Amino acid sequence: VSQPEPDAVAVILVGDELLTGHTSDTNGPWLGRRLTDEGLRVVTIMTAPDDVHGVVRAIEHGLETARAVVVTGGLGPTPDDVTRAALAGLPGEWTRGDLANDVGLEPGVRLESGRGTVFAVPGVPGEMRAMVAGHVVAAIIASAGQLSPRSTRSLTVVGLGEPGVVELLAPVEEYLAGRGRLAYLPCPAEVEVRIAVTGADADDVATTAAVRARRLLGDLVAAEDKGIEETVVEMLRTQNATVATAESLTGGLVAAALVSVPGASEVMRSGVVAYASELKVALVGVAAEVLRRDGAIARTTAAAMAEGVRVRCGAGFGVATTGVAGPDPQEGHPPGTMHIAVASEGQTRVGSFEPSGKLRDRQTVRRQAVVRALDLLRRTVMDIGPGPGESAPARTR
Amino acid sequence: VSQPEPDAVAVILVGDELLTGHTSDTNGPWLGRRLTDEGLRVVTIMTAPDDVHGVVRAIEHGLETARAVVVTGGLGPTPDDVTRAALAGLPGEWTRGDLANDVGLEPGVRLESGRGTVFAVPGVPGEMRAMVAGHVVAAIIASAGQLSPRSTRSLTVVGLGEPGVVELLAPVEEYLAGRGRLAYLPCPAEVEVRIAVTGADADDVATTAAVRARRLLGDLVAAEDKGIEETVVEMLRTQNATVATAESLTGGLVAAALVSVPGASEVMRSGVVAYASELKVALVGVAAEVLRRDGAIARTTAAAMAEGVRVRCGAGFGVATTGVAGPDPQEGHPPGTMHIAVASEGQTRVGSFEPSGKLRDRQTVRRQAVVRALDLLRRTVMDIGPGPGESAPARTR
Repeated sequence: VSQPEPDAVAVILVGDELLTGHTSDTNGPWLGRRLTDEGLRVVTIMTAPDDVHGVVRAIEHGLETARAVVVTGGLGPTPDDVTRAALAGLPGEWTRGDLANDVGLEPGVRLESGRGTVFAVPGVPGEMRAMVAGHVVAAIIASAGQLSPRSTRSLTVVGLGEPGVVELLAPVEEYLAGRGRLAYLPCPAEVEVRIAVTGADADDVATTAAVRARRLLGDLVAAEDKGIEETVVEMLRTQNATVATAESLTGGLVAAALVSVPGASEVMRSGVVAYASELKVALVGVAAEVLRRDGAIARTTAAAMAEGVRVRCGAGFGVATTGVAGPDPQEGHPPGTMHIAVASEGQTRVGSFEPSGKLRDRQTVRRQAVVRALDLLRRTVMDIGPGPGESAPARTR
Repeated sequence: VSQPEPDAVAVILVGDELLTGHTSDTNGPWLGRRLTDEGLRVVTIMTAPDDVHGVVRAIEHGLETARAVVVTGGLGPTPDDVTRAALAGLPGEWTRGDLANDVGLEPGVRLESGRGTVFAVPGVPGEMRAMVAGHVVAAIIASAGQLSPRSTRSLTVVGLGEPGVVELLAPVEEYLAGRGRLAYLPCPAEVEVRIAVTGADADDVATTAAVRARRLLGDLVAAEDKGIEETVVEMLRTQNATVATAESLTGGLVAAALVSVPGASEVMRSGVVAYASELKVALVGVAAEVLRRDGAIARTTAAAMAEGVRVRCGAGFGVATTGVAGPDPQEGHPPGTMHIAVASEGQTRVGSFEPSGKLRDRQTVRRQAVVRALDLLRRTVMDIGPGPGESAPARTR
């Protein structure tokens, strides 16, 4: 077995609820991002059950792959908390110290031996974060010594599938060969491209790769090094512009995505979720005639919702979604059908999408609609030509 | 090393993006829940990097703890996909077969030897789910032989912290001793209590434990074996009642929570996100006088929003949230301050909450508000007495 590298960290999440799928973990991603940002390398994240033997086994495996092991959870006072017993049962001689808990009750534990260091921190996210930021990171870095510089970039692509993105970015793969790597993460309606580079000139190489990728992808790049939500809110703030939303298909998710960005209250005027047809008329001002003629799932209805909410709320831009989330068809349209509209002064743009052949669940359809709505808003705010699903823009009165 | 038990399954998630925290994994929780529902026991979930050696090491560790190992991701055609190379590099003799992919392009792989079985499935959630449900689960169960019956129950508690819940449930701990266990999962504004029992009479024991827990917790139990969202939507459907939301603090998250439940369109009339004060007046009908006198962060404003949206949208119940998400104070109120109102015919109930001493981020504050709003809606729909943060209900005109 080769010796673990000094910058390698193993993370262990303790909890039956994570193994039975009853809770989605947020500690793993937070630790991954935080430790990576510090120049460390998370080599494994393991979930262990609430039993002493399972936690011991996970720590043992962690020590084979990393010099530092961070264990979260199982430190509390209830009978299902087994981490303290597992630490006491680790084979070998360990020097033990406490880690102060500045925001909660249970202190953490630090164990040290020739094999490495084990940090046990609480599972409650706020307490875990405070303890890791305040005590653990510095200790890991101090014992890791000189770290090799690392640099990462990300580009979010909307309007092209993974195979197309891979093909377009072949020259960047070539440029990075031996110095770094590209990873492709397909998500509903978007592909995230990750550039990761290690070495003395990591930052320069990553920047050059990102610039080349952006040139090859053009206006398909919806965001760089942040989410589409942040990107769009920033664009609106820069232009001193405001937005209002009228959602049917997405039931408030577009508004929620915008509002999740700190400072969004400066740009977000208001949002309306209008399911019932008569509320599309009453709250958003869609003409009853349009609904009667074209139905709720229609280009014209989406456009009227976007225009209506923009005017009613006195916003610069109006965003609307309508469509079928499923599982059942609606007004004869299959799940996955959607119309996304963005109204601005004098112009309304609409993207229309049919379901594609693959499996589609409610959540996926709605997330696609959110991404497409934010992307069409981006294109409209920045005055970029037709995007996915969009025909040429129509002038409004 | 002891022999892995026949019902034990190890799950391995492959992807650098999961280790750097750039993507939140959903495959682990889905697999955990699905395999647990089938009577199997997920003993570890490990995340491995996009490198051959790391994936081999994770599979080797998996085979020490389980007879079946499910590997997701890294099967695709792009250069960062290393799972096929890792399978080829596993020490020992393996018999290899394909797993059909009914919804995507890349087939899965099945490897078998005296040490156990390894299933490699795609990382794209839709494809992974179809392949696991269609091919993998049956194969694992067939080789596991007779499974010991397992049964789980969950109760969601709102209005009492973890220590209080633990204290109240001491008799249930005692009842379960040796037969099963209780686990406590603190989340913003709620605690989930999980009951897990193994053995011939698992189902009876779990049911009895759940009944006793419910009796001890009384109306603090907001949901059983499902989320609060599902519970509330079901209650509304049963009563043929409808709801409309007016959100400031939560920016659409209460509406989104309701709408996430299939069939919610029958009960959800409409939702309004009203940030700007003049829109609280224009869209929801809050009296300008109330806003001028008490401000946006006030009991009276929350009540007026709930009443206004209920009447405007012709709904049976109106739900409203107002407060400070942070990070900065607003109108002199610190982050975490919130007022939650539910209006019904002739009565409006308001819960008011001060921030507690602990660290509070935006997401946590908003999730607390969503839980409290759904819980107050539940109490109002079911006509249950005052809940957390609530003073005696006031009659409205």
